[in-house]
Amino acid sequence: MKLMQLYASMKSDLQAIEDRMAEEVSSDLPMLSEASLHLLKAGGKRIRPVFVLLSGKFGTYSMETLKRVAVPLELIHMASLVHDDVIDDAETRRGQLTVKSKWDNRIAMYTGDYIYAKALTVITELDKPRIHQILSGAMVQMCIGEMEQIRDFFNVEQSVRNYLRRIRRKTALLIAISCQLGAMATDAPPRASHALYRFGYNVGMAFQITDDLLDLCGTEKAIGKPPGSDLRQGNITLPVLYALQDDRLSDKLLAEIKLIRDGEGTASSVEAVKLMRSSAGIKQAEILADRYIAKALKALDCLSDIPAKKNLADIARFVAKRSY
Amino acid sequence: MKLMQLYASMKSDLQAIEDRMAEEVSSDLPMLSEASLHLLKAGGKRIRPVFVLLSGKFGTYSMETLKRVAVPLELIHMASLVHDDVIDDAETRRGQLTVKSKWDNRIAMYTGDYIYAKALTVITELDKPRIHQILSGAMVQMCIGEMEQIRDFFNVEQSVRNYLRRIRRKTALLIAISCQLGAMATDAPPRASHALYRFGYNVGMAFQITDDLLDLCGTEKAIGKPPGSDLRQGNITLPVLYALQDDRLSDKLLAEIKLIRDGEGTASSVEAVKLMRSSAGIKQAEILADRYIAKALKALDCLSDIPAKKNLADIARFVAKRSY
Repeated sequence: MKLMQLYASMKSDLQAIEDRMAEEVSSDLPMLSEASLHLLKAGGKRIRPVFVLLSGKFGTYSMETLKRVAVPLELIHMASLVHDDVIDDAETRRGQLTVKSKWDNRIAMYTGDYIYAKALTVITELDKPRIHQILSGAMVQMCIGEMEQIRDFFNVEQSVRNYLRRIRRKTALLIAISCQLGAMATDAPPRASHALYRFGYNVGMAFQITDDLLDLCGTEKAIGKPPGSDLRQGNITLPVLYALQDDRLSDKLLAEIKLIRDGEGTASSVEAVKLMRSSAGIKQAEILADRYIAKALKALDCLSDIPAKKNLADIARFVAKRSY
Repeated sequence: MKLMQLYASMKSDLQAIEDRMAEEVSSDLPMLSEASLHLLKAGGKRIRPVFVLLSGKFGTYSMETLKRVAVPLELIHMASLVHDDVIDDAETRRGQLTVKSKWDNRIAMYTGDYIYAKALTVITELDKPRIHQILSGAMVQMCIGEMEQIRDFFNVEQSVRNYLRRIRRKTALLIAISCQLGAMATDAPPRASHALYRFGYNVGMAFQITDDLLDLCGTEKAIGKPPGSDLRQGNITLPVLYALQDDRLSDKLLAEIKLIRDGEGTASSVEAVKLMRSSAGIKQAEILADRYIAKALKALDCLSDIPAKKNLADIARFVAKRSY
């Protein structure tokens, strides 16, 4: 089945989730509702809700139950994006915040806090404390991941392992528990929820690596901003770490990254992106992403052969397909 | 019993809470641990843990259980202070953030997020989903309270009712549920947890009003910063709202507040504080705080006559005592 068809077949359940999300982020406070709804309307792939619903097929599928998992997981993802923006905004203005942007940053921080808290009110409607606990544990790891990213800005000495640990926390874990909790909430067998966790984790790793590749190799149209935004921010991603291992390239690349760090932003990042695109780092990162996808598919092996299993595999293969 | 004696009698239980808090906010990430521990070491009255423990006396007192309520409640309070600082720092610098303070702000936002999430991992160890739900509901209200405060900065037209609703969300609710959850976690009768909630709510209201009074009437030494910091920030508190109802004073006071808003900060706030101290608004706010304390004491009536009941009453009376 093609991905479009899959989304079409899940349309009414996904719409129910969308509706509940909109309901949750509305408040009596106009500025809060506006800020949250704006983000909600911007949409997205809703990969977490899709994984929750498909994983729920391995237990006793119930939308009443699954909504209470899917909505909070997507809200937590949204809240983390809101808090990311607080940072990015400050970044692009190089330490000069206008009153307007300062106001926005304050609103953004509390909007993020509000969406996090709303997510918790929904998940805690489920009478399964273990699920509440897994979710809060994942939130702790996500915060650590964000802090590690700040710590590691412009650190060209970091290891690949360091990068992988960071994206596990920042991205893969929330996708992993989307699968796990969808299964747990519907009382699927523990074997299934473990397998689905491993599936989600590996897809999540591939997903983030692919996203990082796209930031370097995508067109401005495809990614909605000039390529190289990670580099401009100081975020050293996997392809860059691989490229830095190439002696013929590393000196040039290091020099460009240093220029970016020292504030020579735009021009240098164009140059750095050009260097990166010609490097073997791209191919190497693609290979690792593919390896994670293979592991994700393998994790599905032990699951019963229901259509959802095939759907999950299709999504994993789609993540591996890159179009740049 | 004097308050010092009460704290002394609870010393070992409070220390156990302190230790668990320190354990929770330590991480492998030095900058995260440092930022959190710094705040922890700054101490505080630990009013929330004290209320949790005393309320637990109305059920089956167990430190293993009560720790899992007291630690998260105090951590949530701490996290909210961290996020307040993100704002205050930006405020005092009037839109000019140095790289240093920008870095600090980013760290502060994620440190706050991390402490919130840690709080959740502790409370979810309790096998009582209803408790998880009450806590997350309170967190939502706290965020709304923070947003309302921003919305209402320099709004001299706001009603007393508006102020009271804001401090209920910002302060009173978390103190109310400290009492309620201490009782619920130890399986105290619902009648007791309801009464304790009302007690905590009313003490919390008095507590915030007193805090707002202190900001105007306290010495710099007592409050650790020059008096009038609320006014400088644009936070219009109860005594100010009352003073604005006095025709003989309102024009002068409005003019000073306008000067502060337009950036004539320090000098005007000294003048505004002087005006406020001579106003009847102080006395009126004191009367309302005392009324909340009376209601808090009344709420205790229906509780069984154990020493904890007397201790709670003593704390309430202490909150009502003002020393400026």
